[in-house]
Amino acid sequence: MSICSVKYLKDEDFIKKFGKRLKQVRESEGLSQEQLSLLTEVSQSQIARTELGQINTSISHVATYAKFLKVDAKDLFDFSKIS
Amino acid sequence: MSICSVKYLKDEDFIKKFGKRLKQVRESEGLSQEQLSLLTEVSQSQIARTELGQINTSISHVATYAKFLKVDAKDLFDFSKIS
Repeated sequence: MSICSVKYLKDEDFIKKFGKRLKQVRESEGLSQEQLSLLTEVSQSQIARTELGQINTSISHVATYAKFLKVDAKDLFDFSKIS
Repeated sequence: MSICSVKYLKDEDFIKKFGKRLKQVRESEGLSQEQLSLLTEVSQSQIARTELGQINTSISHVATYAKFLKVDAKDLFDFSKIS
């Protein structure tokens, strides 16, 4: 592979951190994945896979999660709070 | 359309705010869209459309933009700073 063929690559580490933080905030709100799914109209499997870092989710999904978790979207990117 | 068919909807307002904030941070770093494109390997047209709120970008793209704009990803969601 030539170095010239290097293109934008997914940041797997970032995606995993986002998933961990999403799970942390969801649990701190006392919600199950199923409850968050019912609130957001996003399927439970999609939420589960996002929390596991298996889905490179969209910013609109971030907005939806933040809305129903009652946090600011930027708080979902505060990875310094991941335990 | 029955209310039962309502599903997850894109948050267009949020996507537009993200685009405005991305543009603001890019300009504050003194970078053109072309320069950011060269750094990130994301096409200039995709960056332009993201800044216009026409693309519901992924969190991995957010990570890439943040990295090359030298800000924390959460700063790109600090919409209180949009002028």
